[in-house]
Amino acid sequence: MTDYVHGYSDQEAARLKDQADTLARLLYGDLRYPPGAEVLEAGCGTGCQTIHLAASNPHTRFTCVDISPASLALARAALQSRGLTNAELLQGDLHRLPDEARRFDHIFVCFVLEHLPDPAAALAALRCVLKPGGSLTVIEGDHGSFYCHPETPRARQTVDCLVRLQAQAGGDACIGRRLYPLLASAGFRQPRVEPRMVYVDGQEPELIEGFSRNTFIAMVRGVREKALARGLMTAEDWDAGIADLERAATPEGTFCYTFFRATALQGE
Amino acid sequence: MTDYVHGYSDQEAARLKDQADTLARLLYGDLRYPPGAEVLEAGCGTGCQTIHLAASNPHTRFTCVDISPASLALARAALQSRGLTNAELLQGDLHRLPDEARRFDHIFVCFVLEHLPDPAAALAALRCVLKPGGSLTVIEGDHGSFYCHPETPRARQTVDCLVRLQAQAGGDACIGRRLYPLLASAGFRQPRVEPRMVYVDGQEPELIEGFSRNTFIAMVRGVREKALARGLMTAEDWDAGIADLERAATPEGTFCYTFFRATALQGE
Repeated sequence: MTDYVHGYSDQEAARLKDQADTLARLLYGDLRYPPGAEVLEAGCGTGCQTIHLAASNPHTRFTCVDISPASLALARAALQSRGLTNAELLQGDLHRLPDEARRFDHIFVCFVLEHLPDPAAALAALRCVLKPGGSLTVIEGDHGSFYCHPETPRARQTVDCLVRLQAQAGGDACIGRRLYPLLASAGFRQPRVEPRMVYVDGQEPELIEGFSRNTFIAMVRGVREKALARGLMTAEDWDAGIADLERAATPEGTFCYTFFRATALQGE
Repeated sequence: MTDYVHGYSDQEAARLKDQADTLARLLYGDLRYPPGAEVLEAGCGTGCQTIHLAASNPHTRFTCVDISPASLALARAALQSRGLTNAELLQGDLHRLPDEARRFDHIFVCFVLEHLPDPAAALAALRCVLKPGGSLTVIEGDHGSFYCHPETPRARQTVDCLVRLQAQAGGDACIGRRLYPLLASAGFRQPRVEPRMVYVDGQEPELIEGFSRNTFIAMVRGVREKALARGLMTAEDWDAGIADLERAATPEGTFCYTFFRATALQGE
């Protein structure tokens, strides 16, 4: 199992749910699959995206694969509590999918490639289980796209810690900007990348709460112990940096972050 | 006169025109003023925006003010060569507009606040010549919003030179993210800021040329001598950094930059 930079705590599970609820509208709330389609969600984690996809595509069958049994247990509970029965959960490595012969109409991958040491290999593996004419949707963030006002060097350093920890764990927190070349070189056809920028100012109090505080700053906060343990920042600088980030997450500040949503077609 | 970071050379005039042609569509090509309206363009420079505004709003009267007589001469020639007669050019300081009593229906400000030591004071001065019910449109870039793939520290350093030189000249090259609080504190009503992100990948060859190369990299290149003279980078690192930027401005790379377009109403 990859060293998942955000960890697997209860707090992290709560953060993922907050994040998914706010981001569903921005990133995948509009995704509609044809009734009867077979869709693979590769790296479903705790099911934050799964519950939205399954609910808004009730006549589509989702096969959701994740490497972590603990995450799958949470995903199962989330689906059951909502009475969603159109998603099947499977434990497995998305590089070696359980049923190689199975071909999917569509594949959905969200916040997964950023954690993988070789995202190109993962995309190549996924392409093997995609039907001719099938499509792939990939959604990733890019922590290098973050900036805010007011912005201080310490605030930026806390975000850089996340980037460095993810790199140390073999991932790339700035993968959003790389989706086009990754998809093109993995042999997909017609890759189309759409940046979805989240811009938050005093006119958007619900985004200050839902995105800046409960999604972004919460995510940065989550790596505090790891960042300090590895000596990336002192505790004093870290806490001051987080306080600075919080000053930007007020009606007087602004917050900017860009996600990338890519679609591509099976190249065969 | 403010130390205008980009200088006033012929090459710079050509860059501004290339930039304005590509950016007109992205940033202000859709701006339509009511027939008969009196519009102030504050800081019109060489008229790059003026010719687009005047052509697409033929029944609107533009009063275009700039501090530089040399820029105004170029603006005059550009208007004349296109047979545009609905723009009057005036030399003056936008902090002390020639006719204080005159009230405009709308004000347009593009790539100007970034160069001013006190953009809040400029906005306050502009608000004095805006009619009750009138509107202000401000368009600014934000060099801190730039990132690319592949990205190298040297490439980023060249862009940082531009930010530092602009700061040394009393400006703020990262002003885009600050427009909302600036407008709100200057007493304008209902400020609304819309980020307009330019994302360039292999699917957009005309943007690779028109934006990444001829607008952005050309702008960075333009401060080479100043950056070297002030010892911000060595010539060797600078040239390598520019070569790195150029590698991102190919079909295998990606380029991201965000402009901010704000509108607000007279607060009185």
